[in-house]
Amino acid sequence: MPYDAPVNDISFALTQLAAIDRLEGGEGFESYDPELVGPILEEAGKLARDVLAPINQSGDKAGAQLTDDGVIAAPGFKDAYAAFRDGGWMGLAAPEEYGGQGLPRALALGVMEMVHGANMAFGLCPMLTFGAIEALVAHGTEEQKETYLHKLVAGEWTGTMNLTEPQAGSDVGALKTKAVPNSDGSYAISGQKIYITWGDHDIADNIVHLVLARLPDAPEGSRGVSLFVCPKFLVNADGSLGERNSVKCIGLETKLGIHASPTCVMEYDGATGWLVGEENKGLACMFTMMNSARLNVGLEGVAVGEAAYQTAFEYAQERKQGKTEGVDGPAPILHHADVRRTLTTMRSQVMAARAICYACGVAADLAEAGETEEIRQAARLREELLTPVAKAWSTDMGVEVASLGVQVHGGMGFMNETLAAQLYRDSRIAPIYEGTNGIQAIDLAGRKLSMADGAAMGEMIAEINATARSARETNDPQLVQIAERLETASASLAEATRWMIETMKSDRETALAGATAYLGLSGDVIGGHFLTKGALQARSADYKTRAQMTALAGFYAETTLAEAPGRVAGVTKGGEAVLRDSEALFGV
Amino acid sequence: MPYDAPVNDISFALTQLAAIDRLEGGEGFESYDPELVGPILEEAGKLARDVLAPINQSGDKAGAQLTDDGVIAAPGFKDAYAAFRDGGWMGLAAPEEYGGQGLPRALALGVMEMVHGANMAFGLCPMLTFGAIEALVAHGTEEQKETYLHKLVAGEWTGTMNLTEPQAGSDVGALKTKAVPNSDGSYAISGQKIYITWGDHDIADNIVHLVLARLPDAPEGSRGVSLFVCPKFLVNADGSLGERNSVKCIGLETKLGIHASPTCVMEYDGATGWLVGEENKGLACMFTMMNSARLNVGLEGVAVGEAAYQTAFEYAQERKQGKTEGVDGPAPILHHADVRRTLTTMRSQVMAARAICYACGVAADLAEAGETEEIRQAARLREELLTPVAKAWSTDMGVEVASLGVQVHGGMGFMNETLAAQLYRDSRIAPIYEGTNGIQAIDLAGRKLSMADGAAMGEMIAEINATARSARETNDPQLVQIAERLETASASLAEATRWMIETMKSDRETALAGATAYLGLSGDVIGGHFLTKGALQARSADYKTRAQMTALAGFYAETTLAEAPGRVAGVTKGGEAVLRDSEALFGV
Repeated sequence: MPYDAPVNDISFALTQLAAIDRLEGGEGFESYDPELVGPILEEAGKLARDVLAPINQSGDKAGAQLTDDGVIAAPGFKDAYAAFRDGGWMGLAAPEEYGGQGLPRALALGVMEMVHGANMAFGLCPMLTFGAIEALVAHGTEEQKETYLHKLVAGEWTGTMNLTEPQAGSDVGALKTKAVPNSDGSYAISGQKIYITWGDHDIADNIVHLVLARLPDAPEGSRGVSLFVCPKFLVNADGSLGERNSVKCIGLETKLGIHASPTCVMEYDGATGWLVGEENKGLACMFTMMNSARLNVGLEGVAVGEAAYQTAFEYAQERKQGKTEGVDGPAPILHHADVRRTLTTMRSQVMAARAICYACGVAADLAEAGETEEIRQAARLREELLTPVAKAWSTDMGVEVASLGVQVHGGMGFMNETLAAQLYRDSRIAPIYEGTNGIQAIDLAGRKLSMADGAAMGEMIAEINATARSARETNDPQLVQIAERLETASASLAEATRWMIETMKSDRETALAGATAYLGLSGDVIGGHFLTKGALQARSADYKTRAQMTALAGFYAETTLAEAPGRVAGVTKGGEAVLRDSEALFGV
Repeated sequence: MPYDAPVNDISFALTQLAAIDRLEGGEGFESYDPELVGPILEEAGKLARDVLAPINQSGDKAGAQLTDDGVIAAPGFKDAYAAFRDGGWMGLAAPEEYGGQGLPRALALGVMEMVHGANMAFGLCPMLTFGAIEALVAHGTEEQKETYLHKLVAGEWTGTMNLTEPQAGSDVGALKTKAVPNSDGSYAISGQKIYITWGDHDIADNIVHLVLARLPDAPEGSRGVSLFVCPKFLVNADGSLGERNSVKCIGLETKLGIHASPTCVMEYDGATGWLVGEENKGLACMFTMMNSARLNVGLEGVAVGEAAYQTAFEYAQERKQGKTEGVDGPAPILHHADVRRTLTTMRSQVMAARAICYACGVAADLAEAGETEEIRQAARLREELLTPVAKAWSTDMGVEVASLGVQVHGGMGFMNETLAAQLYRDSRIAPIYEGTNGIQAIDLAGRKLSMADGAAMGEMIAEINATARSARETNDPQLVQIAERLETASASLAEATRWMIETMKSDRETALAGATAYLGLSGDVIGGHFLTKGALQARSADYKTRAQMTALAGFYAETTLAEAPGRVAGVTKGGEAVLRDSEALFGV
């Protein structure tokens, strides 16, 4: 089915919920003009719909292939990538000095949502390239920047992140890949990396690998990890491609989904690389781009959820089964109340996650470009707070919504070649990579809540309460009802937050056993805040937007928000049984 | 990994939670002896572990193949089926007069849980055969019984159910397959059936198809549907196999999961069949076996959930990543609190669903074999009430728990060949077939709540409250805390039930829009009832059982039960937004 680029919903989320206009005139965004949002999203929507969506299912079926000459992308991906590259999409949010357009990353997120929604396997290639660009911009030497950034920003070359090894997944510090200094200032890198997304392919001329490795005599663990840049083809002084570096893909994983995204086992056999940033500070360098990578993965949850919603909605309009009032003969299943409720669940969850992600993206931009240090500092806290929520809550949502999409399709949804089934498979990786959702929960409940004396969540809750007050003050019965649910839910989040901050100090193990439940509750309430804000903002919009946003917020309020008070115990008491009887349950 | 047949947990559920002993000496169960439960489960557990589990992943990979000679089962399946057949497992709960052992079906369910848990694709073949046996026992002529039942009960032949056609899924009444009378009393059946599980294969000598079709001039819709028996090979008067009937598999579906279960497109081209039961009463005949088929599918959710739990638990013991207190060097991820919490979630949900399913199974047996009409009537109500809950709640749980199992595996869980990934794929069909979970919700909220003036759920809630009182009266602080959660949850269920019964009369559409949420709440509370009962019953068990059951009930109480009050609004108010703004949301 055609992907219907959700330009209106993304635009609404960016402008009305995430308030991207706050970036206007910010440092570094001189070329940003709010009037650009619509046209840029429209244009990207066409690419997504006309170029990327048509090869999504064929790519799933064909997958990428490993040959003697390296990895060959699925049919059509090379041409599609050329269209992406030639459209200048890679450089949208990249610095102008390297050929980028210097626009807010939040706007690039809007573009990437549609790219992922149309074809998640494709989207991973530019996503990883963005990460490489960010890492080099932040930590590369001038020479490295000159050598790589122009080509990466132009989309002529792509980038990868090489962290994982068989024994080093969530625990990156356990990695063993070695980097031995050569006499010319470069390093010889040797070791095996796994799960390397788009680690090899034939859709661009060169691949710039960012690799974590260990210098000789480096300290053990994460304090002995350094970052290196290591291209597939060495680059001559004049910028032309030189000899093939000794890094290659020696295996492709057979995965549940994202088949057209080659997941490579990479072998570094004395490959030539150059240190990026300081020795033994590789992890810190990687963390520079971790926030944006995590947010991008969260957005994948939104994108796949949206695609699942669209597919289910379309199927529900076409598939006729049974009779309902007001329809002659067999009725489209959309006429059954239960199906419409499922669709409403899907759309409201997607919209909530979308708002969280864009709010996080705008905060990230504002943290760099805000006019005052106060604004930048507040935005940084917000970005830090929302990043794990955006990543984990949105990707869990993506899996659940994709599963609901299968359900709406009935038996047809279990057929492997349907888009519904593909999305169910594709979506499942997002809660895992870029830090499992369990890691995100620990990050939120541990590091993020303790930042600035708990200010990050404190400010968020204050904003939620302000939104609830605004909704109440409209005296519109529907909005007042929503406001009541939001107020109660906010109080629940505040209660759970207090417990978490205290318990993290007094009994870390018990706190950690409640972290995932806490993140879930946080996302539920923050998502409800944005939907409420959406209903408020839509009061001045056209009838359809207003009715839709009010309905989504109203439904979410009576379901997800209404459940918030009952979920506090899951945070504060759920861990007790797990830890108290751990010996009987698990033998540890 | 080896499947660890959960004999203890199944035995506990059957004896302590579902009180299977009430069947002792019941009519038709003269040969049932409570002492048999353990040994039978042990023996079936060996079959599951040693014969069926080893070909689960290979079967997923190879799948069944359609050849010119029909469907060839995945490698190893023929031998495994021979072991199943020779063990006499098909006849465990079948009438003794046809060679069965006449044991309670609840006990056969315990066997089937392990069969499905070890190899769900395999389990579907006997499951469908049970259905065919039940239909023929209830509705077949004496000649049909003599012709087919001995062979089916012995496992020499297998059975299928042929309902679905492309335009007739949930709406069975829309089917078009024709049955034209022949001069000899048989019928010529013509049409196409889809999604026929184990519709063709090479693991047994004959296949007995039960087929829904329409007689010439039959009324339209579901009142014009008749049931026929139509064997793959016609049966000679002496019982030997005669000529090949003109029914064949013309296509195999490529599915998300259960690859080793051939899902056939069946073509009936004037195939010879015989009427089962009365003309135009085919749907009623099918419904005879629908309850037990639905319960069996619910059990698949339990089985797959259990397998996912086991796989995740094993992986968590093996996979080392990061450091925790008290462990030198990298710790197994089981030592991380978040992982243990996930495993506790999985196990408690599985145990709750298991109890619901076995309670439903025992009720079904008691409905037939209870000593007095009063007992039988009460049991029938309980069976009717629990069937949709067992089917839908357990299968939704199965999908969620399988997804959690993937998550515990991290990146490894996304590798398509891992058992975790397979279970995620396999589990997804169960909420769909045998009546989608949406259909189950409508059945519960509509038909089941209105039976006997609401007595079915009324009795259930009274029993829940009695369990809560018993827990409270122990004065054991842990049990008292659980009792409080159960009481509150029970009151929430009662409130939602009153609303549903009233609204189903006054505003059916709004009621239907809340049906799925109502079923979810019902399962949550009934599941909590059984876990509480488990904690109570385990007080006299060994230390480990007691600690485990108390921990599972305690965890469930602070999570799922604590959320019950907040879920009432989802039932009573969630549908409002969906229906009120349906035009803006969906254009209908």
